[in-house]
Amino acid sequence: MALPSLGLRDAVAAQAPLVQRLLDEVARVGADPPGITREAFGPGENAAFALVAEAGAALGLAASTDAAANLSLRWAAREPAGKPLLIGSHLDSIAQGGNFDGAAGVIAGLGAVAALQAAGITPRRDIEVLALRCEEAVWFGLGLVGSRGMLARLPPGALDLPHARTGLNLAQSIAACGGDPARLRAGLPLRDPREIGAYLEIHIEQAPQLIEAGAPLGICLATPGNLRHPRIRILGEDAHTGLPHRFRRDAAMAGADFALALERFWLAEEDAGYPMAVTIGRFHTLPDRHSMTVVPGDFTLSLDLRAYDAGHLQALEAQLGAIAAEVAERRHVTIVLGERSWAAPGIMDAAIVEGLAGAAARLGVAAPRLNSPGSHDANNFAAAGVPTGMLLVRNANGSHNPREAMETADLMEAIAVLAEWIAAG
Amino acid sequence: MALPSLGLRDAVAAQAPLVQRLLDEVARVGADPPGITREAFGPGENAAFALVAEAGAALGLAASTDAAANLSLRWAAREPAGKPLLIGSHLDSIAQGGNFDGAAGVIAGLGAVAALQAAGITPRRDIEVLALRCEEAVWFGLGLVGSRGMLARLPPGALDLPHARTGLNLAQSIAACGGDPARLRAGLPLRDPREIGAYLEIHIEQAPQLIEAGAPLGICLATPGNLRHPRIRILGEDAHTGLPHRFRRDAAMAGADFALALERFWLAEEDAGYPMAVTIGRFHTLPDRHSMTVVPGDFTLSLDLRAYDAGHLQALEAQLGAIAAEVAERRHVTIVLGERSWAAPGIMDAAIVEGLAGAAARLGVAAPRLNSPGSHDANNFAAAGVPTGMLLVRNANGSHNPREAMETADLMEAIAVLAEWIAAG
Repeated sequence: MALPSLGLRDAVAAQAPLVQRLLDEVARVGADPPGITREAFGPGENAAFALVAEAGAALGLAASTDAAANLSLRWAAREPAGKPLLIGSHLDSIAQGGNFDGAAGVIAGLGAVAALQAAGITPRRDIEVLALRCEEAVWFGLGLVGSRGMLARLPPGALDLPHARTGLNLAQSIAACGGDPARLRAGLPLRDPREIGAYLEIHIEQAPQLIEAGAPLGICLATPGNLRHPRIRILGEDAHTGLPHRFRRDAAMAGADFALALERFWLAEEDAGYPMAVTIGRFHTLPDRHSMTVVPGDFTLSLDLRAYDAGHLQALEAQLGAIAAEVAERRHVTIVLGERSWAAPGIMDAAIVEGLAGAAARLGVAAPRLNSPGSHDANNFAAAGVPTGMLLVRNANGSHNPREAMETADLMEAIAVLAEWIAAG
Repeated sequence: MALPSLGLRDAVAAQAPLVQRLLDEVARVGADPPGITREAFGPGENAAFALVAEAGAALGLAASTDAAANLSLRWAAREPAGKPLLIGSHLDSIAQGGNFDGAAGVIAGLGAVAALQAAGITPRRDIEVLALRCEEAVWFGLGLVGSRGMLARLPPGALDLPHARTGLNLAQSIAACGGDPARLRAGLPLRDPREIGAYLEIHIEQAPQLIEAGAPLGICLATPGNLRHPRIRILGEDAHTGLPHRFRRDAAMAGADFALALERFWLAEEDAGYPMAVTIGRFHTLPDRHSMTVVPGDFTLSLDLRAYDAGHLQALEAQLGAIAAEVAERRHVTIVLGERSWAAPGIMDAAIVEGLAGAAARLGVAAPRLNSPGSHDANNFAAAGVPTGMLLVRNANGSHNPREAMETADLMEAIAVLAEWIAAG
């Protein structure tokens, strides 16, 4: 631990071929041109799990699978009584997504362990590299499944959700990958969060803020929580194209008005210093009914509101209701917000943020502090009370698309900061 | 024609049972709860044609079918050399539409003839009650088919369009109903518009302007022409929900912005005294790609712009391009307007408008002058140079829905004005 960081820096640099090989291998097993598909609980994710397990074995790490089918690769410490540091992320991708969303973080954990070993450093506490299952929401309509399962944060009914491709439910999918869904049904954490020393996740940034800042990585302050309404309906009245404006109850125009009102509200909140985001991913007249010559009386939209503070998110919910009521009155329509779901923001541990910032400063690596655009498995650890930190890696083209553009050199900088932080711990 | 209008008014009133019976009978043959379906060139429309032909025969009218399968019921005049007056409308409906859109006008023609006969009036010129085929655009993606066919205004390729239900093309559909598609392919009018004295159409109003005005009928000044873009695409970029606003190229938000910009433009034009309408019937993210957690990069909308003056419509087209360019620049998206179609407005003949207004005044019937919300077969007659007039009948709930709400008493008032106008001619 007293070794100079320069020696560790060289040891990190020496792991670049290993890191690149692992990135290439997980790309190969998920190849689905033009993108990458590593279907959760399917061939792509399983193959990536096998590759990671093999790399862990080569580093002498002890593998174990938990009841949610997550993989832990454990490096025994000098003081085995200490609470372990978990370094995790996920290996699944969306359909035809990119290679780095998730996998880069697991591989970075292995790279950090390999670098520490090469530098002759044995950590004070156990380190576990975690490959978490099924982070992406596309497979079951529910994301962060592995970390939810580990920490008893699966919502009711989750184990019965069907997989979008295989049709197996989540319980069956977990069982097929070596997990124990019966244990998950019991509703207890698979490991006591009070016995986890810290959770650290490296993940590509899902916005180009670091590109804009010219920094290879950033230290995350918070991951967003969200308020979601998957199916908001606006009900007006179908009418003839010739109907004068004053008589119309146009649900699509009301939808447009609602969307822009939410956007104005968003920008005003940001201006006032409250970061958040509004995404309306589904926004549509009804495919089986709409027509060029009918004023549409029925419109549907989804809404994902995200913010970095639970109090802010609660305030947004009240504002959402007020904006909907205002638009409904102005447009003579009914707006039914419908079912909602809510996820808590993840606030990163202040001491970890300071520790990572100190490590970056010692290495001379620019690492601005920023909010994560996306939610991550880190949310669940933070919500469970585990001291949690994240490093975000520069990436030009967002995630969930084949054009993710992380440079391995930037990932190596993040690994260096992580290893330096561990060594200083 | 020197008969006092009071006598004719009584004669009209005496036709109420006939008119009601015919309205009920066409409803019966089209019954498709909760609405009415009289499919063009199908069982519903054919049955209504048969009912109307039977009623014409009972009035001694001579039936003939033209090459477009339209039905003419002719009442020979005192001076057979004169150019005939055509009183027409259509008998088809949309799927699960209402009973009155179209059929009320054909039945009104029969009612007027019956009233004139009962009053002992033989008109100066021949009168033909016309039942035109396939006015609704839903069956072939092309409306006003019967009047287009009669006046050589079918667009290229129209005869090859497939019927939405039967799959028969338009030529086959016309042939199956006793028409002669080969003659239509020749591209000449089935009758010379210069030999038509006038065209008069009674139709329910498709907006509640007459409800608002408290008048049973109105005298139409113009029917709208339109500029249509069936498939406008907005191309931005798919992105993660966490992407900050300044980086987004959100196609759906651009669609919302575009729709509201068009609406503002519409209302400004109306304020400036240029009546028009903007309808965006299809307005949607892509059903096979959109997701609650993806900022949508692709959006589609249809646009129907209508106005009552050809010059105004041309000016609107230039404005449309300017608004699209402005939104595209503001939102960092591409807007592709794509294919377009154009239909000329129908300007009603000034002498007929005055004649109808005089007839209404003599009868003491409130009949304000107004623009028609919808396009009608009258558009084609006006565009072909035939002196054209229309009476619109009060109707609370628009058309193209089962809740059309024309009162037979209001239709009888329109028949009275029509008969009075004919008698004075």
